[in-house]
Amino acid sequence: MTEPQIQNPQSQIANHKSRSPIGVFDSGIGGLTVVRGLRRRLPGESIIYFGDTARLPYGTKSAETIKRFALEDAEFLVSRGVKLVIAACHSASSVALADLERQLTVPVLGVIEPGARALCAATRSGRVAVIGTGATIRAGAYEQAIRRLRGDVEIVAKATPLFVPLAEEGWLENDVAEAAARRYLAPLVAERIDAVLLGCTHYPLLAPLIGRVLGPGVKLVDSSEETAVAAEAMLGQRDGGMEAGRDEERKAKPGTLSCYLSDLSPNFETIGSRFLGEPLGDVLRVSVGKG
Amino acid sequence: MTEPQIQNPQSQIANHKSRSPIGVFDSGIGGLTVVRGLRRRLPGESIIYFGDTARLPYGTKSAETIKRFALEDAEFLVSRGVKLVIAACHSASSVALADLERQLTVPVLGVIEPGARALCAATRSGRVAVIGTGATIRAGAYEQAIRRLRGDVEIVAKATPLFVPLAEEGWLENDVAEAAARRYLAPLVAERIDAVLLGCTHYPLLAPLIGRVLGPGVKLVDSSEETAVAAEAMLGQRDGGMEAGRDEERKAKPGTLSCYLSDLSPNFETIGSRFLGEPLGDVLRVSVGKG
Repeated sequence: MTEPQIQNPQSQIANHKSRSPIGVFDSGIGGLTVVRGLRRRLPGESIIYFGDTARLPYGTKSAETIKRFALEDAEFLVSRGVKLVIAACHSASSVALADLERQLTVPVLGVIEPGARALCAATRSGRVAVIGTGATIRAGAYEQAIRRLRGDVEIVAKATPLFVPLAEEGWLENDVAEAAARRYLAPLVAERIDAVLLGCTHYPLLAPLIGRVLGPGVKLVDSSEETAVAAEAMLGQRDGGMEAGRDEERKAKPGTLSCYLSDLSPNFETIGSRFLGEPLGDVLRVSVGKG
Repeated sequence: MTEPQIQNPQSQIANHKSRSPIGVFDSGIGGLTVVRGLRRRLPGESIIYFGDTARLPYGTKSAETIKRFALEDAEFLVSRGVKLVIAACHSASSVALADLERQLTVPVLGVIEPGARALCAATRSGRVAVIGTGATIRAGAYEQAIRRLRGDVEIVAKATPLFVPLAEEGWLENDVAEAAARRYLAPLVAERIDAVLLGCTHYPLLAPLIGRVLGPGVKLVDSSEETAVAAEAMLGQRDGGMEAGRDEERKAKPGTLSCYLSDLSPNFETIGSRFLGEPLGDVLRVSVGKG
């Protein structure tokens, strides 16, 4: 990131805040679906993304280890001058958010709360579902967040782990994906839910298929998209506004995206571009923590 | 492991060698398919298994990191007094075997060579296939091993990554597994191969389905099973015999199995028992390396 030109000391601070990038981290590259949402909603914002591909997945690790990793990831972003840290990783959001809030010098946003809030707003019948990886569903963080917001909803929680490799394989609409979706989602159809939360960074890619299998009466809530909405609100509220896209000059100039990964797996570009919805651009490898 | 009773110094060494357990390590619990093969072929042998579930998967990591992890895993087994170390992990076998052989004080066996040898013996037409995870296929270790053994074979190498989560989900014969197998294996059928190597610890569980899709003219070579065959030969050859099942007394007494994992994920027992083909028994958590 290049520092803005100094006009006078007063405006320097305000500019620095508003023009600073947003930091997003995830255990891998799935968190690029959150970046996609941010770039759609806040095209003037620059973003620094860090994916901890060397240590993924987080979901199978202990809470203590996830907290340590999440803090190391976030501190890397803070060292790059971000004004806001978004934990796009569902496992990190579930177990490490309070620790991050306590220990970081910038505001922090996770994916659980925005998703839960949007799900509660979307349901009419009060019968909702959450789908995610085995680790996310077992942790129950979404269910707890939903219960805190609304005590009267019935929640069906269902692990749908095959959706991750299907998304990574790019099998989004074929017979394999269709058969898996029908098998996983049949219990949700039987429970007559009217809203479902896509509780994993990978799932937005399968949204068209999931929507078709569940039928037109079921609303799909995308945590990645809702987190971008929450980030927009957060930037507008704090310190009298931290949005880069406020003035007309900035609106015309699109924000940049810098990607850092802790390990460059051979197909991160293909998969990453799929999640991001645009080419990934240059990616740098960087080590964080002790490995 | 309890030390054998000392009779006299001479027999102590022989007994120690023959009665010492076999050590098997893997990045996770898929390596239990190798243990299954060992227990079937060498029921008198005791086995110590270590699965590095805290740091899995290895396949996406750099060769340097895989070598370090593999050495730490193997050293844990050696510290438990094993007479032979088997690297059941395909990634570790691909990149770290020479390092292990150089640095360990006990013999080492990987899964690549036994599988490649059996595949070369199985083919008549000289048209063979290797299937495995993306990392294994990209590494090309099986192709190199096959080429060293036989220069005249045509090799189709195909990544079939969804077979891993299908095996872990227990979806071995349903419509999802069937659709995935047909999609992945169609190019192999078109190439008219007559033998296929199951180049991943998870794949033996899907062998019935894979066999059905490929048709009766294609032989399936199971690396896990072939590694057990190689271990049997190795124990018979070295130092005038290291087999525990030699004397009649030992044959009647089945060997024990001790399982160690570096992280206890919530469903390792279900999945582990599926790979092992019998209940997993007690499992201890143990830390190796620096995390």
